[in-house]
Amino acid sequence: MTELDLTLDLTSDVAELTRALCDVESVSGAEGPLADAVEAALRRLGHLQVVRDGDAVVARTALGRPERVVLAGHLDTVPVAGNLPARFEGDLLVGRGTADMKGGVAVQLKVAAALAAPSRDVTYVFYDGEEVDAARNGLGRLARMHPAWLEADLAVLLEPTAAGIEGGCNGTLRAEVVTRGLAAHSARWWRGRNAVHEAGRVLARLQAYQPREVEVEGLVYREGLNAVGISGGIAGNVIPDTCTVSVNYRFAPDKTLAAAGEHVREVFDGYEVTIVDGADGARPGLDRPAAAAFVAALGAEPTAKYGWTDVARFSALGVPAVNFGPGDPSVAHADDEHVPVAQLHACERAFLTWLG
Amino acid sequence: MTELDLTLDLTSDVAELTRALCDVESVSGAEGPLADAVEAALRRLGHLQVVRDGDAVVARTALGRPERVVLAGHLDTVPVAGNLPARFEGDLLVGRGTADMKGGVAVQLKVAAALAAPSRDVTYVFYDGEEVDAARNGLGRLARMHPAWLEADLAVLLEPTAAGIEGGCNGTLRAEVVTRGLAAHSARWWRGRNAVHEAGRVLARLQAYQPREVEVEGLVYREGLNAVGISGGIAGNVIPDTCTVSVNYRFAPDKTLAAAGEHVREVFDGYEVTIVDGADGARPGLDRPAAAAFVAALGAEPTAKYGWTDVARFSALGVPAVNFGPGDPSVAHADDEHVPVAQLHACERAFLTWLG
Repeated sequence: MTELDLTLDLTSDVAELTRALCDVESVSGAEGPLADAVEAALRRLGHLQVVRDGDAVVARTALGRPERVVLAGHLDTVPVAGNLPARFEGDLLVGRGTADMKGGVAVQLKVAAALAAPSRDVTYVFYDGEEVDAARNGLGRLARMHPAWLEADLAVLLEPTAAGIEGGCNGTLRAEVVTRGLAAHSARWWRGRNAVHEAGRVLARLQAYQPREVEVEGLVYREGLNAVGISGGIAGNVIPDTCTVSVNYRFAPDKTLAAAGEHVREVFDGYEVTIVDGADGARPGLDRPAAAAFVAALGAEPTAKYGWTDVARFSALGVPAVNFGPGDPSVAHADDEHVPVAQLHACERAFLTWLG
Repeated sequence: MTELDLTLDLTSDVAELTRALCDVESVSGAEGPLADAVEAALRRLGHLQVVRDGDAVVARTALGRPERVVLAGHLDTVPVAGNLPARFEGDLLVGRGTADMKGGVAVQLKVAAALAAPSRDVTYVFYDGEEVDAARNGLGRLARMHPAWLEADLAVLLEPTAAGIEGGCNGTLRAEVVTRGLAAHSARWWRGRNAVHEAGRVLARLQAYQPREVEVEGLVYREGLNAVGISGGIAGNVIPDTCTVSVNYRFAPDKTLAAAGEHVREVFDGYEVTIVDGADGARPGLDRPAAAAFVAALGAEPTAKYGWTDVARFSALGVPAVNFGPGDPSVAHADDEHVPVAQLHACERAFLTWLG
């Protein structure tokens, strides 16, 4: 690839721009060349203040508007699976990153180029490290190092939502539930107490569990409590004295992480419960004026986001946030990842209507 | 340790001889020096034919008696745990190998030395590699390479039974029971099917299982079917699509390994069942004349052996076999392993009565 290939043409069609972005490979940890190209394209526009931290690029208008909104997207992808270069197939653009989420990044860049004087001040955030450990998340780094860069009345994260508005997100918590028994040789099993058999009672509680559906600010969040792992036993002739069931609780954003932990302890009352990790959800914030205006401009009915996403990082900074972007989230990370070209155009049009 | 220390004095008291045997460390794989000492001591007796294969030593009388019996014991121990040299504490001899099973080996050697013309021909078998993988078992090697060396009307294995006769042994079988589901992101768990939750139903069958107690040739064998391991799950945010429950079935010697496998498949009907490994049990053979004479000579009431032992190797060669030796099997492998001195004397006396 020559230097010339890395020059992004922001006047090209959003689908063509998406293709060009996909063809600059940017698997997590190797976002540098794409971040360079994005930074250069934004600087060429002339009407934006551009700053950078590592491979995160932030560009903003400074027009003194009474409201400011953030449009955010990540530059990295999961590893390529023989699905590059991207290619058009009928109404689809197919290839790694088309849905998650260079289609969204292309929309951000098109809006940034088109609106020199948007109706609200806009901050465009492009960041690295979303597809890997939370510790490497570029948006998290910006929130720690440069929180002022992210200040806004509303944030829109352009993760794939099939061009529908998805508000907030469920929280997530992982816990380990441990059963204890007494080891014994399996030839004299009656001298022991089988911790794996006991874990059957833990699994029975999970099977019987009735998850809530919770309405928060008009959106319905579906909760879930599931085993995501189990392990026990040390040898083929020993009655296990310990069994660990790993559970994942997805909880609606009306509940704090601490309250979620209490709930899990109640469900598994009588067993050892250790909270391993977790993250608060995000309320949809659709009662805020900037969010209401966004919903009104799109004329779309918002729905709840189930998966935990980086909207929660904005929520933690006091910035209500919604997900809205091109592509079906269920094909993200899939080998046949793709985005409908019509959704790219629909998303671009929505932002131009709202902010034009 | 000098060469002199490795000379075994078969005229010493059986407890003193046990202590001397223990102080020649012989953790599995390092039985050589002890096998050398045992071989040399047997050859010095003059009334035995002595052969050797690796670190297994076999000595036999050849008096043309109508019956032949085997007295067998293994030379190796599990690793030493700061419990050597062996020492006397009150009525006990304490240290690695005292119970499992150099006390038994000492009894073999005392009987071999005392009876130049026993009432039945006797084959004394000392072998290596009992405490490790079945593939390294010295008795198994003799059975494959020199089956004629093991021919007899009855075998007595001097593993610890607290000087009681334990007949035959249960068989053992290990199987894996696999549940299948459908993977999904745990944020949208309802799109998947949780294989770990399903494994709860497998564990419920184990909890409800009623093991048999089976009488075989007058002895009652207690069966057992237990989970010895469980594993499932690949990540904290994925609904598991597979869960594997490892089960161990201990079955009475009225049942073949094949029949045991069928039974396990029936118990877990509806799930994938793979038989991983197994070994037939051994019938006690107490209806054979040589065994009946042994029981009569001891005046003891035989009981069933639960753990699988090398008696099954004799059983597979058509030689009925019982366990009878000094020491409590529950302290075998324990750091405080020990043998009551009185049991050493009782076992020695029993063999001299039976074979004198």
